[in-house]
Amino acid sequence: MNLKIAVLSGDGIGPEVTLQAKKALHAIGVVYNHEFVFEDAYIGAIAIEKTGKPLPEQTLNLCRNTDSILFGAIGDPKYDNNPEAKVRPEQGLLQLRKELGLFANIRPIKAYPKLMNSSPIKKEVLQGTDFVVYRELNGGLYFGEKNTNEAGTYASDLCEYNEEEIIKITHLAFKEAQNRRKKVTLVDKANVLETSRLWRKVVTKIATEYPDVTLECMYVDNASMQIIVNPRQFDVLLTDNLFGDILSDEASVISGSIGLMSSASIGEKHSLFEPIHGCYTEAKGKNIANPIASILSVALLLDHFGLDTESKKVIAAVEKAIVSNVVTVDLKVDSQFGTNEVGDFVVNYI
Amino acid sequence: MNLKIAVLSGDGIGPEVTLQAKKALHAIGVVYNHEFVFEDAYIGAIAIEKTGKPLPEQTLNLCRNTDSILFGAIGDPKYDNNPEAKVRPEQGLLQLRKELGLFANIRPIKAYPKLMNSSPIKKEVLQGTDFVVYRELNGGLYFGEKNTNEAGTYASDLCEYNEEEIIKITHLAFKEAQNRRKKVTLVDKANVLETSRLWRKVVTKIATEYPDVTLECMYVDNASMQIIVNPRQFDVLLTDNLFGDILSDEASVISGSIGLMSSASIGEKHSLFEPIHGCYTEAKGKNIANPIASILSVALLLDHFGLDTESKKVIAAVEKAIVSNVVTVDLKVDSQFGTNEVGDFVVNYI
Ligand SMILES: CC(C)[C@H](C(=O)O)[C@@H](O)C(=O)O
Ligand SMILES: CC(C)[C@H](C(=O)O)[C@@H](O)C(=O)O
Repeated sequence: MNLKIAVLSGDGIGPEVTLQAKKALHAIGVVYNHEFVFEDAYIGAIAIEKTGKPLPEQTLNLCRNTDSILFGAIGDPKYDNNPEAKVRPEQGLLQLRKELGLFANIRPIKAYPKLMNSSPIKKEVLQGTDFVVYRELNGGLYFGEKNTNEAGTYASDLCEYNEEEIIKITHLAFKEAQNRRKKVTLVDKANVLETSRLWRKVVTKIATEYPDVTLECMYVDNASMQIIVNPRQFDVLLTDNLFGDILSDEASVISGSIGLMSSASIGEKHSLFEPIHGCYTEAKGKNIANPIASILSVALLLDHFGLDTESKKVIAAVEKAIVSNVVTVDLKVDSQFGTNEVGDFVVNYI
Repeated sequence: MNLKIAVLSGDGIGPEVTLQAKKALHAIGVVYNHEFVFEDAYIGAIAIEKTGKPLPEQTLNLCRNTDSILFGAIGDPKYDNNPEAKVRPEQGLLQLRKELGLFANIRPIKAYPKLMNSSPIKKEVLQGTDFVVYRELNGGLYFGEKNTNEAGTYASDLCEYNEEEIIKITHLAFKEAQNRRKKVTLVDKANVLETSRLWRKVVTKIATEYPDVTLECMYVDNASMQIIVNPRQFDVLLTDNLFGDILSDEASVISGSIGLMSSASIGEKHSLFEPIHGCYTEAKGKNIANPIASILSVALLLDHFGLDTESKKVIAAVEKAIVSNVVTVDLKVDSQFGTNEVGDFVVNYI
């Protein structure tokens, strides 16, 4: 196979972890005879610095014309603490998701036996947990009209959804459930929100087209509790943009470290793969950031292009690294290994 | 002291747990020589059934003219699964919060040593956790304009905040922090939402009036993770209506059971005390519901009226019940004790 891949490594630890992902993907290419061509471009704070825009035209054009995208991380504390900033790194990612129609963000949540001890949750509770979050990524509170008054004493964000947006991701979620344990849990706040009631109506109707899949509805406040109390109950967790953001970060505690969590953002034409952790600026350049999430996003990419054996190989390499204790300090406090060493181990294994 | 208290026990297990709260409050009255006069009124699904409205005029009038309110729970599965329902039990509670100006919902989160084993989180992580959530309760996505189109294919909810709403609860939160470990964590999504940026701006400014208190800002996705990974870091967690709903339910896993969590809703003139658990319809009438949250809401009520000794007495009674294993099945699977028995134990202790 021949794939052209845009690499948007972004800010903070983005570049160093994405480098390991590229190394892993390159190794897969060599071993399995594929050609992966990488092209780098700016996004986020670094893009603002270089071009004044969080998503330069050039980057967007590149992304439109590649087969897929590897994404690092974005953000910079200097924007976080300045509520007045007009241009922000995160806008780059949001705009990219929207422009490319990446409407589904897919986040697998799994308890790794070897890592259960590093999770704050008890082993008995974690054992056997294996679910996947389907988060809508193009709508909701993130993209509705935003307003402030002149005096700066009032602000608003509009949460909106239309039927089509919900239909698209719902079909993906139900199809995924058919290949898994055949259960979809819709998470919403239908006792309060009009948009949630629309979700419930649309999803309930679509569910009838998948008689082999069970649909369960759960309020988001309850879900945030259930994810910790009884995570095994979930198979496919379907939810909107904001709830998906909160719940999937929460669910990352199940795997033992957010440094293990990767995600796929899928649209009709495009796809993007990224670790779910952020830019973690404090760790930048120290060779301590965990590259596993970024490397696992390569496994998701390969899987997306039907390269099943190759994808499994990457996962096996990561699991081998974990079992061999070749992990960064977030997983083993006294570890000797850094970002680069973990990446090298994975490459060698492949 | 002489207090007139409206009792809105509501739906599901509401009536049976509120009965235990009344018993406890009555016992305090007898022992400490206070007169607590109770007046019952309908709210929620039961109110819809009796009067067609989730918050009947009569109930609202009663609440306006009492010293305080004891609240049970509301909700009914028959409304949950009907996205078309025009009248819903929850509207009763939301309208009550709004009409009475109950703008701050205060939820204490504590790891009870005796109950740590029943939490899904590891003891080492929980130990020493003691924080309080200040959730804004009159604004945000809950109360902004809601819309649907005629065809029922589009829906929206508006999230809005103005400065005054934020200022009021922020002062409460900082004052509380001064009496505690002197730290406020503002939870928002300021990298995406305009309302969050307003929160950050207003809170940051107010923080300068409390030089002895440290302000920290945290994104809600990160917070949902931090609550599980490192709950001890929080002292006062200040946030908006929706985030507060999600995070405080999530945080309930720290105490071992949501059946232990009570909350105070405070306004300029009025106050309401309620367990944070919902109506739990499946348990209704079975004498298995945990009344502790409801009884602890009495402790919050007493504290609110300056009856410190009395409040501590109620807490001591609950702790004694827990230590003596006089608890419901949610806390001890093979427990012989029911809702009523726990209530009786508390009354006897008082
Ligand atoms: C960086 C931020 C805008 C983003 C989001 O909220 O979607 C991130 O938290 C994520 O989950 O990918
Ligand atoms: C019943 C519901 C409307 C309510 C809320 O979301 O505020 C409840 O979950 C709560 O937290 O008190």
